[in-house]
Amino acid sequence: MAENEEEKVKLLGVVGSPFVYRVQLALKLKGVQYELLEENLEHKSQLLLKYNPIHKKVPVLVHDENPITESLVILEYIEETWKGNPILPQEPYSRALARFWTKFIDEKCMSTIWKTATTLDEKEREKAIEESHEVLQILENELKDKFFGGETLGLVDIVGTCVAFWLPAIEQIVGLELLTSEKFPKLYNWTHQVLNHPFVKETLPPREPFLAAFKARIQILTPSK
Amino acid sequence: MAENEEEKVKLLGVVGSPFVYRVQLALKLKGVQYELLEENLEHKSQLLLKYNPIHKKVPVLVHDENPITESLVILEYIEETWKGNPILPQEPYSRALARFWTKFIDEKCMSTIWKTATTLDEKEREKAIEESHEVLQILENELKDKFFGGETLGLVDIVGTCVAFWLPAIEQIVGLELLTSEKFPKLYNWTHQVLNHPFVKETLPPREPFLAAFKARIQILTPSK
Repeated sequence: MAENEEEKVKLLGVVGSPFVYRVQLALKLKGVQYELLEENLEHKSQLLLKYNPIHKKVPVLVHDENPITESLVILEYIEETWKGNPILPQEPYSRALARFWTKFIDEKCMSTIWKTATTLDEKEREKAIEESHEVLQILENELKDKFFGGETLGLVDIVGTCVAFWLPAIEQIVGLELLTSEKFPKLYNWTHQVLNHPFVKETLPPREPFLAAFKARIQILTPSK
Repeated sequence: MAENEEEKVKLLGVVGSPFVYRVQLALKLKGVQYELLEENLEHKSQLLLKYNPIHKKVPVLVHDENPITESLVILEYIEETWKGNPILPQEPYSRALARFWTKFIDEKCMSTIWKTATTLDEKEREKAIEESHEVLQILENELKDKFFGGETLGLVDIVGTCVAFWLPAIEQIVGLELLTSEKFPKLYNWTHQVLNHPFVKETLPPREPFLAAFKARIQILTPSK
């Protein structure tokens, strides 16, 4: 791709958001250069309000002045626009499975795990821990290869970075052990494969400042912690 | 497509579900013959539990013995498997927009409208009505052509059948007028274009039995109605 075309890719985001991060990782895997425009979500920019007037949220990918919003929609756009290093398989049934597991991680897995950190009621919290074990077991059963995408990172792994990176952060802040090598050996090994992938290592936020900011966010949501 | 191949398409579903219906309409638009296996959700079949062990929900599309679940995942699969009469545009940015509006209808629009029928608290209900007007106004502003898909039904229109058919049912049962020709002239006209589309007319459930069943369902959810 010519440099002047590459320059046209911008990403409105915040450092530390799993939804922004998945877009950054996909762009990295595709070899697409982009400019990260950091947002302050307390004082949203005019650009964000212009490009995402309905949800007013990050990430927003801007390509050739066209804004694309919603992280899963952006990932499909990236896959269709830059064909190299595919993140989805070619065959329709395998693509459907990848989309199913992506939705599962996004809609079921992360909301369940998030509750273990943000629920104050002890009974509710125990229920959330039990349900987290259930969803992690489902992922454990599904994992057949090095990555969900096989030998290389695919869509499920990209979206799954919220399990590989954000879940251990939640565990550390809350003082929980959810994803242990004893209970979920394949998934535990997968998190290390993901975190040691060179593109993941290069693009993840630095751990200590991220942890401090993430802890502050959880404390805002659950004042007693 | 040869008849023996067509015979391999089965759909596990229930009549009256907007999530099942959107799959039926897409199959109809593609000219795919299928067998509808009606589920009783009070006594789920072994087949449903086998094919959708995680969510145990309909619709499930079974093609060549491969089960596909989650209605939006199924629609993408249908589009990729049967190429005729595309329901998504070809160009990536237009595809991203179609996916964005599909998510908007599914995640924002219908849950907001549904609350107007199922919320007992009067203040909450007034808020839901106000928010319903807002989401309908957003759709009104977005509608540029005969259909969201242009001159023919596309993904947004297929998913939007929940607005065209299920919303008037909610209005009738609850005694509300949300989508009026005065407030939303383009969207109002669109609902008629959708409902008069020959494939939609052929596949929608018969109105009176549907209304009775739908009313019973709303009453279960809101006992005082």
